[in-house]
Amino acid sequence: MGLTLADDVLGRGLALVQREIDSAFDAILPVPEDSRARLVEAMRYAVIGGGKRVRPLLVVTVAEMYGANRSGAIRAACALEAIHVYSLIHDDLPCMDDDDLRHGKPTAHKAFDEATAVLAGDSLHALAFELLADERVSADPFIRSELVLTLATASGHKGMAGGQMMDIAAETEEFDLHTVTRLQQLKTGALLMAAVEMGAILGKLPDEGRGHLRNYARDIGLAFQIADDLLDHEGDQELAGKALRKDEEQGKATFVSLMGAEAARAQAHALSEQAIGHLAQHGKEADLLRALARFVVERDR
Amino acid sequence: MGLTLADDVLGRGLALVQREIDSAFDAILPVPEDSRARLVEAMRYAVIGGGKRVRPLLVVTVAEMYGANRSGAIRAACALEAIHVYSLIHDDLPCMDDDDLRHGKPTAHKAFDEATAVLAGDSLHALAFELLADERVSADPFIRSELVLTLATASGHKGMAGGQMMDIAAETEEFDLHTVTRLQQLKTGALLMAAVEMGAILGKLPDEGRGHLRNYARDIGLAFQIADDLLDHEGDQELAGKALRKDEEQGKATFVSLMGAEAARAQAHALSEQAIGHLAQHGKEADLLRALARFVVERDR
Repeated sequence: MGLTLADDVLGRGLALVQREIDSAFDAILPVPEDSRARLVEAMRYAVIGGGKRVRPLLVVTVAEMYGANRSGAIRAACALEAIHVYSLIHDDLPCMDDDDLRHGKPTAHKAFDEATAVLAGDSLHALAFELLADERVSADPFIRSELVLTLATASGHKGMAGGQMMDIAAETEEFDLHTVTRLQQLKTGALLMAAVEMGAILGKLPDEGRGHLRNYARDIGLAFQIADDLLDHEGDQELAGKALRKDEEQGKATFVSLMGAEAARAQAHALSEQAIGHLAQHGKEADLLRALARFVVERDR
Repeated sequence: MGLTLADDVLGRGLALVQREIDSAFDAILPVPEDSRARLVEAMRYAVIGGGKRVRPLLVVTVAEMYGANRSGAIRAACALEAIHVYSLIHDDLPCMDDDDLRHGKPTAHKAFDEATAVLAGDSLHALAFELLADERVSADPFIRSELVLTLATASGHKGMAGGQMMDIAAETEEFDLHTVTRLQQLKTGALLMAAVEMGAILGKLPDEGRGHLRNYARDIGLAFQIADDLLDHEGDQELAGKALRKDEEQGKATFVSLMGAEAARAQAHALSEQAIGHLAQHGKEADLLRALARFVVERDR
């Protein structure tokens, strides 16, 4: 599982969230009896099992830190994960990154076909907002509406999708460290920021009290991406369950190509420590977040 | 414009909504100064200009019939149109319908490239929910949340995307009239139903008072699709601004192939009259809806 380096706290926390997310999606996505069956099967294939569920863990942990109930948080976490998974399905398409493997199994368009993969991604995208607008996330419509606004903004052209567009531009343009940082803050950082934000919304934490959580998320997001570049550079392809070293082959700027492996590693660890520092006001209830900050830089896949 | 057969009321109503929607999207989508510019340009290319804006007209007309303010309704209508347009972008992709023309101009993946088209569709999809969760649609978070729930459900695997999956299956399976009707009720009907539903939500019309509007939407949706099949069968490709007679070439079941052109035409007109009948309780304020019911079966593109 690649969790050996991380706290046992984290291993247990992730395993629990993984079970809860899988079981929620299983209930949310019954397979219909008509020709839509293939679509729902593709959605289930992509969204159940596989994936570390880091984003759901962030939502649920922050929500519970501020007293929100776990079952609503799990549904909100499913929404965030549905967005993450839809983006992976579309990202893996032949016209995008053209990847055949994801989490060690064939990508959606390989297991099904391209048209089904496009539609399964689109359907998971819609499902995310269907889940967030449902009373089972929260009885308070203001909370539901804020969750939708946060996730839609973080995943659209101002956030994740914008970062993906920059990532495509990076194949032909020469990006410096500042631009690569900005790209990654959008491409992967925006959803990690949305995760803690959604936890804070569920926990009714006022906007002005969220600064330290946003700083934490920004730091682990960047640390996560630097570690990802290091794994892409040095990692084991089999363990990763996906193709590695594609950026290098394409001559695409990464933290490793711009800083060198050693400086990148030092930077990732510094960011991880800094992230933990932002949690100083919290006691044991934030231990999972601390363990996660260590895990993102110590993982081997 | 192909509006000559329709009421002048409708021509004016559509022209006004077209201007308002275009101007709203122009303000909502400023082009950023970094590499995300290409993404936003593709979104603007697809969503500004072109399109009859039938769905926005439905939202705004129903909302105003029940006293909602027009500016909020226009933003909600932009959300619905963003969903419609994202679905067209993805539908036109080579792995889906592989179309080169839409509204008489190159499709998004032809004007840009496939990866940008996928991302532009995804970004319009997210934008729809960002718009609906924004206070400018309504100060009431319950209304915002209900709008999100309605649009997400109608566009996802239970609605539009599910219909698109059935449409792909129709290329290889033999569908009867019942199944083609169900397919079309999902593929195009679900969003038209969502349009009147969203208008009713904005106008705070209680659920139990919406039956006649849903019946109206169901009937014009089916009439619209039968007319579409007739246009596909008999229409002028240049006027349509898109490739015609593809279903016939693929041997795909349509209302025309299953009923014959004459019976299909009679059915479309009967549905149009029936739709107008559902509006009996309304006075002049529903004249646009009546004109629209006539237009959907009399249009020449």
